[in-house]
Amino acid sequence: MCQLLGMNCNTPTDIVFSFTGFATRGGRTDEHKDGWGIAFFEGKGVRHFVDHQAAIDSPIAELIKRVPIKSTNVIAHIRKATQGVIAQENCHPFIREAWGYNWVFAHNGDLKNFAPELDGSYLPIGSTDSELAFCYLMQSLRQHFGRTLPDNAALQQFLTKICAEIASHGTFNMLLSNGSALFAHCSTKLHYIERQHPFNTAALSDEEVSVDFSAVTTPQDRVAVIVTEPLTTNEQWTALQAGELKVFVDGRALV
Amino acid sequence: MCQLLGMNCNTPTDIVFSFTGFATRGGRTDEHKDGWGIAFFEGKGVRHFVDHQAAIDSPIAELIKRVPIKSTNVIAHIRKATQGVIAQENCHPFIREAWGYNWVFAHNGDLKNFAPELDGSYLPIGSTDSELAFCYLMQSLRQHFGRTLPDNAALQQFLTKICAEIASHGTFNMLLSNGSALFAHCSTKLHYIERQHPFNTAALSDEEVSVDFSAVTTPQDRVAVIVTEPLTTNEQWTALQAGELKVFVDGRALV
Repeated sequence: MCQLLGMNCNTPTDIVFSFTGFATRGGRTDEHKDGWGIAFFEGKGVRHFVDHQAAIDSPIAELIKRVPIKSTNVIAHIRKATQGVIAQENCHPFIREAWGYNWVFAHNGDLKNFAPELDGSYLPIGSTDSELAFCYLMQSLRQHFGRTLPDNAALQQFLTKICAEIASHGTFNMLLSNGSALFAHCSTKLHYIERQHPFNTAALSDEEVSVDFSAVTTPQDRVAVIVTEPLTTNEQWTALQAGELKVFVDGRALV
Repeated sequence: MCQLLGMNCNTPTDIVFSFTGFATRGGRTDEHKDGWGIAFFEGKGVRHFVDHQAAIDSPIAELIKRVPIKSTNVIAHIRKATQGVIAQENCHPFIREAWGYNWVFAHNGDLKNFAPELDGSYLPIGSTDSELAFCYLMQSLRQHFGRTLPDNAALQQFLTKICAEIASHGTFNMLLSNGSALFAHCSTKLHYIERQHPFNTAALSDEEVSVDFSAVTTPQDRVAVIVTEPLTTNEQWTALQAGELKVFVDGRALV
């Protein structure tokens, strides 16, 4: 199984702290060594780094830990291959365009007997069940909403339905972002935290590193972090429920 | 105006030598300092690096010069903004998926009164005339060829027609690749070279660097390099003709 990491903020924020703990799971403290990837929104653009090397051995992962890239929406993934060979085209996150926006997607889980009918508007490039599910999801969004990008409430409602349909084929924990909202669907395991003023010191569970967020933030900053397994030992993370789809905007979960 | 660099090979080859000279034009020997980008195919997957910093100042460009990434198809671009603000989403190369393949595109030139009708299948994310032309081109390909990916001869014929139509709005030098073929359209300026056995030493025109290709290749290797302005001083580059669209496969131009 893979691991997911997402971040959604109201101010461009670097993910160095969370990525450092997360990347450690890619080959050192955990078995996720079959590739990794991360996508940072910067305005409507995306910086996309994927690598089929273990995150712990990758010079690009090293660069991301060293050079802070500030973003309001980030999705990262470390891979333990279940379906699809170890190859560049099978590394999450995947990206497609719809309504003139980048949509970034990553999945944790395993789908069985999943063979949706695709009309050609979005086709998988690699051989994973994850990218297939992403293509089906994007096709469904476009078929349902036509030429107009819906609002977040409508997206949440429709995505909850499509995710439930996909999750009937297995485990479907996923993160999806269009650069303004971040959608998180939990099928078995996903946790989140909202950090805001007053900020405290957080200690990573995977590395002997801690950070005093109050020293690197302003009182207006809000950051939501969504992850498979909690990253810190001294904060209260909330578990999403099975079948729940949460939407994060400006560092906060919408009800 | 921007500059383009493409590479098409029969064996995965690193582009460190050519990129070193090319990136120097991004802010030092030339005025192209409004961003840069490069995309490397690795199988069907792509590594995509774009940055709205000048290539000469970018830590990611530095990484690419230091860590050789081997690829059979590469497209790079350095930008002098003519249309569209300096932003991540306006950096070439652009990527879209069609027929389950990544299509990578970069453009040099400037289009006027270009407002094609888009059906929503491919929409620009940024505000450049270049990405608009790419979306129109991909939409035209999909409309014309339907569900089946055509062969290179059919693509060459159809792309020549579409590129002529787009070029009627201004300058349209472009590079396009789907990971197996690289298509180069010349409207005003594009040069190429095919390197093969016996390999010689090449000297960069922008940096005091030379490389003896015979020491880093095998006799079977073939590499085509396509670029706005020749990169080396001691080799014979061929200029493409206005309106010409060449297809490169396995390091060689098809007739």
